[in-house]
Amino acid sequence: MRDVSIVGIGQTPVGEHWDKPLHILGSEAILMALQDARLEMPEALFVGNMLSGQLSRQENLGALIADHAGFCGIEAAKIEAACASGAAALRMAYMAVAGGLYDVVVASGVEKMTDAPAEEVTLALTAAADAIYEGEHGLSFVALNALLMRRYLYEYGYQREDLAGFAINAHRNAVHNPNAMFPRAISAEAFARAKMIADPVSLLDSSAIADGAAAVVVTTTDLARAQGLPAVRIAGSATATDSVALHDRRDPLFLQAAQTSAQRALAQAGVGAEDIDFFELHDAFTIMTALSLEASWFAPRGGGARLAMEDAISLQGRIPICTMGGLKARGHPVGATGIYQVVEATQQLRGQAGANQLQGCRVGMTQNIGGSGAIVITHVLERVE
Amino acid sequence: MRDVSIVGIGQTPVGEHWDKPLHILGSEAILMALQDARLEMPEALFVGNMLSGQLSRQENLGALIADHAGFCGIEAAKIEAACASGAAALRMAYMAVAGGLYDVVVASGVEKMTDAPAEEVTLALTAAADAIYEGEHGLSFVALNALLMRRYLYEYGYQREDLAGFAINAHRNAVHNPNAMFPRAISAEAFARAKMIADPVSLLDSSAIADGAAAVVVTTTDLARAQGLPAVRIAGSATATDSVALHDRRDPLFLQAAQTSAQRALAQAGVGAEDIDFFELHDAFTIMTALSLEASWFAPRGGGARLAMEDAISLQGRIPICTMGGLKARGHPVGATGIYQVVEATQQLRGQAGANQLQGCRVGMTQNIGGSGAIVITHVLERVE
Repeated sequence: MRDVSIVGIGQTPVGEHWDKPLHILGSEAILMALQDARLEMPEALFVGNMLSGQLSRQENLGALIADHAGFCGIEAAKIEAACASGAAALRMAYMAVAGGLYDVVVASGVEKMTDAPAEEVTLALTAAADAIYEGEHGLSFVALNALLMRRYLYEYGYQREDLAGFAINAHRNAVHNPNAMFPRAISAEAFARAKMIADPVSLLDSSAIADGAAAVVVTTTDLARAQGLPAVRIAGSATATDSVALHDRRDPLFLQAAQTSAQRALAQAGVGAEDIDFFELHDAFTIMTALSLEASWFAPRGGGARLAMEDAISLQGRIPICTMGGLKARGHPVGATGIYQVVEATQQLRGQAGANQLQGCRVGMTQNIGGSGAIVITHVLERVE
Repeated sequence: MRDVSIVGIGQTPVGEHWDKPLHILGSEAILMALQDARLEMPEALFVGNMLSGQLSRQENLGALIADHAGFCGIEAAKIEAACASGAAALRMAYMAVAGGLYDVVVASGVEKMTDAPAEEVTLALTAAADAIYEGEHGLSFVALNALLMRRYLYEYGYQREDLAGFAINAHRNAVHNPNAMFPRAISAEAFARAKMIADPVSLLDSSAIADGAAAVVVTTTDLARAQGLPAVRIAGSATATDSVALHDRRDPLFLQAAQTSAQRALAQAGVGAEDIDFFELHDAFTIMTALSLEASWFAPRGGGARLAMEDAISLQGRIPICTMGGLKARGHPVGATGIYQVVEATQQLRGQAGANQLQGCRVGMTQNIGGSGAIVITHVLERVE
């Protein structure tokens, strides 16, 4: 298999894009990524998206966006893996280039959620859970995370305020991200006072409904070098799955798929968790942040929350996370999130992260989660010297 | 790249499966395919599906079906390309095995459409069209095909009855297919009298709303040989796209994406259209059959209908199509159709097509269309001697 690198990145601001339908929003990010790579046209396009059918009555996004972006004729498809759809699209692009089917492929993610009433979006999002055992019984994603968070607090003796650091860190890092949905800092007091959504999950534990699109151009590392393009290697790429329904897991507080996919991606990259300079993880809820850190070897079981309390996750900390605001504050347009994570990791590794730049970072990890841990896709990215 | 073969096939009957949710139906076909291949577990699973989010409030089908089929942990994703979702899932499996990422991958397709009211299904299917320019204006898929068919009849001086042969052939071939939804012959008189849906498209020009699932196991041809498995080579595999909205096409009566994808698949296989022994095409509507035959070099422009009038498409004809009943009579559970086509082509190439067996067939072609020609995926399959 061939060595694969990211040579172009593009992203729209995350927010409410009432004026732009899916294909315009999606095309914008793709054209930015191609311009960044100084390339005109990919050979294939994979679009990560979860909700376009339910919320916009639009499927066939691969062909639709390929046409509108000006690539009519190329191979294209939509890839769906709930909130991990973005990283799943990148996996397909990686496979196509690593395997030698294509030399230049675009992986993108796009989601429009804000045009529909919030209750409709909440219902649509339950499609990431088990419809029969969870969705039909009214278990929304906030409710599922509330169950997990309550159990976590009980099991390890934390208070809900002990998770505040995750949200505070994300919002602090979003301040200097021009594409962030909530570019403003929040205080511990604000977190403590935040409106309760599904006890113990408050407004500030949760990511918000959002629109957005992001894209990356991938090619072989050899081609990138030959063309003199600033490249970030995909050193590791791995997907793992778990039971979709929470009650089917032996231990709901352990994200087995996160561990397996991180293990595979790290092994492929030939590095350990201790070599990771920063981690763009899937902080859709503060509890997911804690569980993701624990499953991915950055903290012992029950120790994830402690990283927040000790501020080990800040830009100056031992393992910086959500360096551009994360799902919480950059925003979480679900099918696009996995690509935003990779775009931001690429910015860090290229030294283009502005005020949030991590000094001397060399290896970053991204982790995109679909459902309450049902599918997890981890990428290890490395600066090409 | 490695040479790839199909070594296992599975399919459920097409029909109304009110008693089986998506994951049960999907798992059944997958387990049959694995049993057929004498294998226990794939390394990855790609599920073709279009409507599960809209009609069943269930996404994340990759993880869900992987878990229920007994493969919890493996890589999985749902692939969506409207009615070409099945073949798009096979493309991913092909890429993964050809490229060397995995040795054994399952590509499956599953769709459940009959639990929802027909008007809801019609609305959901418009998601394959351009939502803004077509869907929101009330253009259903039947209506889009009616526009195409009327133009075709006008342009080439046909009567609607001139397309009857396509439906008659499909129904005749379905009689001996135990998995067909409509295993009964129809007469030319029945076609002439058929209830009009959207003039000139009648009930017997159209495929019906259906449930069903199919699956294939793919591996390398070398591994298949080493294990003594009866293999059918994927000699050619290609996807091409076109504008989604019909009005954006220079010539709506020419399926450019069908021609491009057939051209690529044939070139990869090193054969010409004249070498194809049979063609499992996308007869969602009789007009699509005519256009697909023309775009794929089996008939000149405007000459597709003539193949039906001359009966060149029957099992004894020059270019047999829909050998097990096609979308019209085997049935068209949209996201599963592309896999059904490949399962049936494999049956023919293995000599397992029963009463419908084509004598001495060696090379078959399948073609799966998403939207009104917006995405077309063609595979050339070859018996491994």
